[in-house]
Amino acid sequence: MHCHRNSDGGFEVIIASSGENAVELLDASEGKYRALVTDINLEPDKLTGWDIARHAREIDPSFPVVYMTGKDVDDWASKGVPNSIMLAKPFAPAQLVTAVSQLLNSGTTLA
Amino acid sequence: MHCHRNSDGGFEVIIASSGENAVELLDASEGKYRALVTDINLEPDKLTGWDIARHAREIDPSFPVVYMTGKDVDDWASKGVPNSIMLAKPFAPAQLVTAVSQLLNSGTTLA
Amino acid sequence: MHCHRNSDGGFEVIIASSGENAVELLDASEGKYRALVTDINLEPDKLTGWDIARHAREIDPSFPVVYMTGKDVDDWASKGVPNSIMLAKPFAPAQLVTAVSQLLNSGTTLA
Amino acid sequence: MHCHRNSDGGFEVIIASSGENAVELLDASEGKYRALVTDINLEPDKLTGWDIARHAREIDPSFPVVYMTGKDVDDWASKGVPNSIMLAKPFAPAQLVTAVSQLLNSGTTLA
Amino acid sequence: MHCHRNSDGGFEVIIASSGENAVELLDASEGKYRALVTDINLEPDKLTGWDIARHAREIDPSFPVVYMTGKDVDDWASKGVPNSIMLAKPFAPAQLVTAVSQLLNSGTTLA
Amino acid sequence: MHCHRNSDGGFEVIIASSGENAVELLDASEGKYRALVTDINLEPDKLTGWDIARHAREIDPSFPVVYMTGKDVDDWASKGVPNSIMLAKPFAPAQLVTAVSQLLNSGTTLA
Repeated sequence: MHCHRNSDGGFEVIIASSGENAVELLDASEGKYRALVTDINLEPDKLTGWDIARHAREIDPSFPVVYMTGKDVDDWASKGVPNSIMLAKPFAPAQLVTAVSQLLNSGTTLA
Repeated sequence: MHCHRNSDGGFEVIIASSGENAVELLDASEGKYRALVTDINLEPDKLTGWDIARHAREIDPSFPVVYMTGKDVDDWASKGVPNSIMLAKPFAPAQLVTAVSQLLNSGTTLA
Repeated sequence: MHCHRNSDGGFEVIIASSGENAVELLDASEGKYRALVTDINLEPDKLTGWDIARHAREIDPSFPVVYMTGKDVDDWASKGVPNSIMLAKPFAPAQLVTAVSQLLNSGTTLA
Repeated sequence: MHCHRNSDGGFEVIIASSGENAVELLDASEGKYRALVTDINLEPDKLTGWDIARHAREIDPSFPVVYMTGKDVDDWASKGVPNSIMLAKPFAPAQLVTAVSQLLNSGTTLA
Repeated sequence: MHCHRNSDGGFEVIIASSGENAVELLDASEGKYRALVTDINLEPDKLTGWDIARHAREIDPSFPVVYMTGKDVDDWASKGVPNSIMLAKPFAPAQLVTAVSQLLNSGTTLA
Repeated sequence: MHCHRNSDGGFEVIIASSGENAVELLDASEGKYRALVTDINLEPDKLTGWDIARHAREIDPSFPVVYMTGKDVDDWASKGVPNSIMLAKPFAPAQLVTAVSQLLNSGTTLA
């Protein structure tokens, strides 16, 4: 298992080596992660981003989720979780930072 | 297969006899339905409301979806589709009419 | 000039006989109307619903506007005014009532 | 203490005889009320609608609140609670029904 | 025709030399631009920012539009397109980056 | 009274030495401030962030307000002003920049 740390707009980022690893990190996290940013992985026999996001929401129903994909954007409407954001590649770094911030801040504003 | 028609706030309502029947109706609909209002059915070996909603969204990614349930409201965050509304029972008729109207009207307003 | 009064969900409705008449009513209104619900009229040499809505917004920048049309829904994105709602025909009465209510109530909620 | 019951859009309504009575009802409610619709009462030495709403939110931070007033609408921005709706009198019944429904439904949609 | 490239929050920016030039670039773009950020130009006999935005929306009804102006902010309500943002000068760079990101991300969230 | 200036995402920031000082600055501001970012101060006999925000909204009903706190996040629902954002500490700088930008930009988008 390899973890790397980066910093983007002030967010500390943990990068998981695989979907399985991401699920392990979430299970052991005890609330120390604040948001999930996941690629949609379509390799056979692998956990996809859709699976990881559902798992994160079973642990915490209000967990912020951002999906990233270069194709299959329409799948979000049937496979994504509620109150998540889908970013189509390519996107600017500011879009990701704004997406995560909007989801984190939305807990205290009304639709 | 039994269908009943009702009228509520001006909406014509088709009631499906089962989850399987709902999926058949959606598959044969050719765009004649405007929204899905579904109970969360937890009987073993049956299609649940979660399944039916995902199916509706595979056919039309912007299809309005309202779930109704007396319990397990938290499951919506991990099992629901994006841009759907969950109504916890008991709810007033006006809540359902407003929910469907909001989803139908939202195509032309901005988040 | 002929005006008719109806009542719908508690709203009093004034029906103008033409686009020109609607503009006259708005100009003479001194704030007594609360919202504009307009058809998109495409007869040559006539004021369209797009024109009437722009006129209403010049008088009051926050005036609620709902457009109704049976076709050309995509024109809304280039010809409609901001913070308006487009209803595609056919629609249920509840959609119109909810649309007007949402616009009237939105002054006191945040995007 | 006098309570009356009405029905509006399917909502059961409890009318309190005063601000003090409303607070008593909320304190004893054990979650059986679903929303507060309150007039802004400006009689001296009385609880105002602003006070009652703050009290309701101390008991339940997500309690839906609708204020009604014939004047002083601007006070809402400094005295109202977050995620509430202010209705300026006169308003149509549909506006109140939609306001309450929007607040009740908003728990499961995103800003 | 002179084009300049800048980078802001990760966005690549194309600056058009005039309103006419902006329309040419949009017409020839084949989807390679992602958003329009336009000044409101009020020189006589020139295309205004209102015109350019309407043109962009005729090509793509969901094209993100941000207007910038030092005055006449109220004109936005009657001359702007739906789902656009108006920035009053002076504004901070972060406001523009957030505005563009919100519009680009809004395709996958619900009102 | 000591004021310091910083720059963050392009925003100029004025830091007040106390709640009392913040109120003085707002009273003398004549519209030159654009947003309030305030800590929730719970020292006895001191103005709290809740008080300062209410004061700012009495001067300008649409003034953007962001609260910051390390605890008592639930108090926001009963003590905060409408259309404000609460940031729970610790938060990333990007969350604050996005929060202020969202509030400043929201005047020209619809809920």
